[in-house]
Amino acid sequence: MINLDKFFVPKSIAVIGVSRNPRKVGHVLYRNLLECGYTGKIFIVNKNANSILGKKCYKSVLNINEKIDLVIISLPAKYVLDVVKECNKKNVRDLIVISSGFGEVGDIGLENSLRDYLIENKMRMLGPNCLGLFDAYSKLDSIFLPRYRLQRPEPGGISFVTQSGAVGSAILDIATNKWHRFAKFISYGNGTVLDESDIVAYLGKDKHTKVICLYIEAVKDGNKFIKVMKEVSKKKPIIAIKGGITDVGSKATLSHTGSLAGNPDVYFGVFKQVGIIRAESLEEMLNFASIFERSIKPKGNGVQIITNGGGYGILSADAIGLSKNLVLAELDKETIKYLRLKFSDIVTVGNPMDLVGDATIRRYRISLDACMDDKNVDIILLIVLYQTPLLSTDIVDIIAEYNEYKKKPVVVVSTGGEFTEVLRLALAKNNVITFSFPEEAVKAIDALVDYYIK
Amino acid sequence: MINLDKFFVPKSIAVIGVSRNPRKVGHVLYRNLLECGYTGKIFIVNKNANSILGKKCYKSVLNINEKIDLVIISLPAKYVLDVVKECNKKNVRDLIVISSGFGEVGDIGLENSLRDYLIENKMRMLGPNCLGLFDAYSKLDSIFLPRYRLQRPEPGGISFVTQSGAVGSAILDIATNKWHRFAKFISYGNGTVLDESDIVAYLGKDKHTKVICLYIEAVKDGNKFIKVMKEVSKKKPIIAIKGGITDVGSKATLSHTGSLAGNPDVYFGVFKQVGIIRAESLEEMLNFASIFERSIKPKGNGVQIITNGGGYGILSADAIGLSKNLVLAELDKETIKYLRLKFSDIVTVGNPMDLVGDATIRRYRISLDACMDDKNVDIILLIVLYQTPLLSTDIVDIIAEYNEYKKKPVVVVSTGGEFTEVLRLALAKNNVITFSFPEEAVKAIDALVDYYIK
Repeated sequence: MINLDKFFVPKSIAVIGVSRNPRKVGHVLYRNLLECGYTGKIFIVNKNANSILGKKCYKSVLNINEKIDLVIISLPAKYVLDVVKECNKKNVRDLIVISSGFGEVGDIGLENSLRDYLIENKMRMLGPNCLGLFDAYSKLDSIFLPRYRLQRPEPGGISFVTQSGAVGSAILDIATNKWHRFAKFISYGNGTVLDESDIVAYLGKDKHTKVICLYIEAVKDGNKFIKVMKEVSKKKPIIAIKGGITDVGSKATLSHTGSLAGNPDVYFGVFKQVGIIRAESLEEMLNFASIFERSIKPKGNGVQIITNGGGYGILSADAIGLSKNLVLAELDKETIKYLRLKFSDIVTVGNPMDLVGDATIRRYRISLDACMDDKNVDIILLIVLYQTPLLSTDIVDIIAEYNEYKKKPVVVVSTGGEFTEVLRLALAKNNVITFSFPEEAVKAIDALVDYYIK
Repeated sequence: MINLDKFFVPKSIAVIGVSRNPRKVGHVLYRNLLECGYTGKIFIVNKNANSILGKKCYKSVLNINEKIDLVIISLPAKYVLDVVKECNKKNVRDLIVISSGFGEVGDIGLENSLRDYLIENKMRMLGPNCLGLFDAYSKLDSIFLPRYRLQRPEPGGISFVTQSGAVGSAILDIATNKWHRFAKFISYGNGTVLDESDIVAYLGKDKHTKVICLYIEAVKDGNKFIKVMKEVSKKKPIIAIKGGITDVGSKATLSHTGSLAGNPDVYFGVFKQVGIIRAESLEEMLNFASIFERSIKPKGNGVQIITNGGGYGILSADAIGLSKNLVLAELDKETIKYLRLKFSDIVTVGNPMDLVGDATIRRYRISLDACMDDKNVDIILLIVLYQTPLLSTDIVDIIAEYNEYKKKPVVVVSTGGEFTEVLRLALAKNNVITFSFPEEAVKAIDALVDYYIK
């Protein structure tokens, strides 16, 4: 495993190619770096300026009199190799090259000479043609997209490794808005030196990373990929999407990151063989990541549905019937007896347990208590439709409390507009797993069980 | 076809069972009716009160000295038949019975005697055990869920017919929040007199309804269902979800609306035979409804992808490759020649057309113009990732303008957080079709083409 610590927690950074023009990549990148909360030292290099945003500019990295842990380069492609050579002289080992204009636009020669020099000199590079990285713990942020356009997430357990910067940034943005929490975000672009396998291997040992998401278009070193993924997937779930799985999609990859896409069946076969969880869409990748980030390991595949909407119970039961791994839990006879006594005829005691439209907090509490104690129940799918007038919003605190015990995974489904979203946010902030639709919740639970139980 | 006009645009309504207690169904229902913007006359009936919310109470519907077009009943089940008899005396023909406590809790006798009386006396009833209806044009709103908990949508072309009140209200709420627009919402509950077929037949002729969504758990009269759906689906798309398609889900329906669910394959076969579009999840139903509501009829199945994110182009091409009906459009040679001239080497001219990360409005305008004029392009899938700093927000006005021409369907995909959502909302308000993820957009386009072209 290559140690990438200096990429994520460098003590000092030099940014080469900081522009005075606020719309240029090098400028936005530097401004974000100033604002992101990173606490190490930042130096900026620009041949043609004395200072930018009130900060002194150095003509070259060689003029900086302190040790530099990480250099971020945002210069036109043709200047990159020369600057890398200066970094080598300065004894910098770790580089992020944001610049595009290499293999992905056909200039393979330029990319190869850069790669050869770096490898010969034992230097590590993220990129080129990438966004670099974001670390939610060290706060380091090399993404050159404005913070008002692209939100950055709270610290958590999801790490996202992406070949495509656009896919990465869009997903980071929507994920933040949906309260998903991240450890690290890494856009590795052309993967010329450090590739997806190097990064995933490192994340396998990263204490903050609980689940790894991976967007790849092509894998250059298949054997390395297989070896690394096999190893890491045993310790942490890896959820992946491969872009270019069809003929038409595959042709499109050629003109993107400049790498040939493989045969879809080959990739899917490899994914399965190495223990990668395949997501069928970007949305599904986020859903899966979210449940793995928040859930404890379930003890089995028996799901108990508790609902205040009969139709939602039915749709959830259908989704469980269609799932690969899940079954409806069968409540213990004692539990059923107890609940029938408690509820008389109001509630349909069973699975789904239908607390019906005038359900109150009391009904939720009684049924949650009983299911938490019932050894036949492994996972609770809790449907809470907030539209009904008798359901007090205190339900949020109650669910958060049950979730705190962490005896069994509790997955909450609430569909609705503004009022519902406020309550979903409150739950999410309390580390509860929440979804908008029953079908997506069940698919996520299915992936969870597939990874931990099968 | 049964004329249901008086349900949606009654000149006068009597509500029977209005309670003084603000948490009771009859009270919330009445309050909503006062606040919804309905402009006809409203009378309230309560044996034990003189006035509620400042409005005079009648002891019986027979005491009202004006003609009543529609009666809404919210009384305990056992009192309903007596009140219905009074309505008959008053010559009321149309009734909504909100009350539960009939067949769905096992009291089939009570439900049958109600049904028999109504049919004998040529009266029509929506319900029992339902939410009634919402009409976005006449503003009539019989839903007894508080408006702060359940948002009501803007007028538009989606009509939603649902057996389950919970499914209906939750979906209505989230749909409103996602800027979907509705014509009518009908929760028909046990469907004792008026059933899903009667309602769909009526919507088939409703001038506001462009697309019909249907959530059913069981169909009582299969022959009627087949006849009506076959007829209506030729004129308007019908998107349906059947709850209880698996063994486990099917068992759950028994204890819900009191009706037996059928075999899933039988239903899917019937759906196909009668031209119903099957949605695999509630989310998919909304996505499909949204494209049918806003799109013009495409001329063919050739989709041109325009994107400012390479990975998004690839994922969209993959989704098209996996779709049932879609192909990537092949741009005319003249178009390619023209675009290469305009863009030199910056843009990957082809399909996907990759305007790359520093795409400006100019690049979008040039490529949109060219694709609009190219006869090989039937549908445009326009990916706009707002995270990049050089993309001015004026793009919103440009897209709205192209959408206005209505020459070809334009479907926009934008993934992101707050900034993106503000711009998506702006587009949605301009009648543009927008999605968050490429895969869901392609599935919706596939459904559109499947309906109009195949």
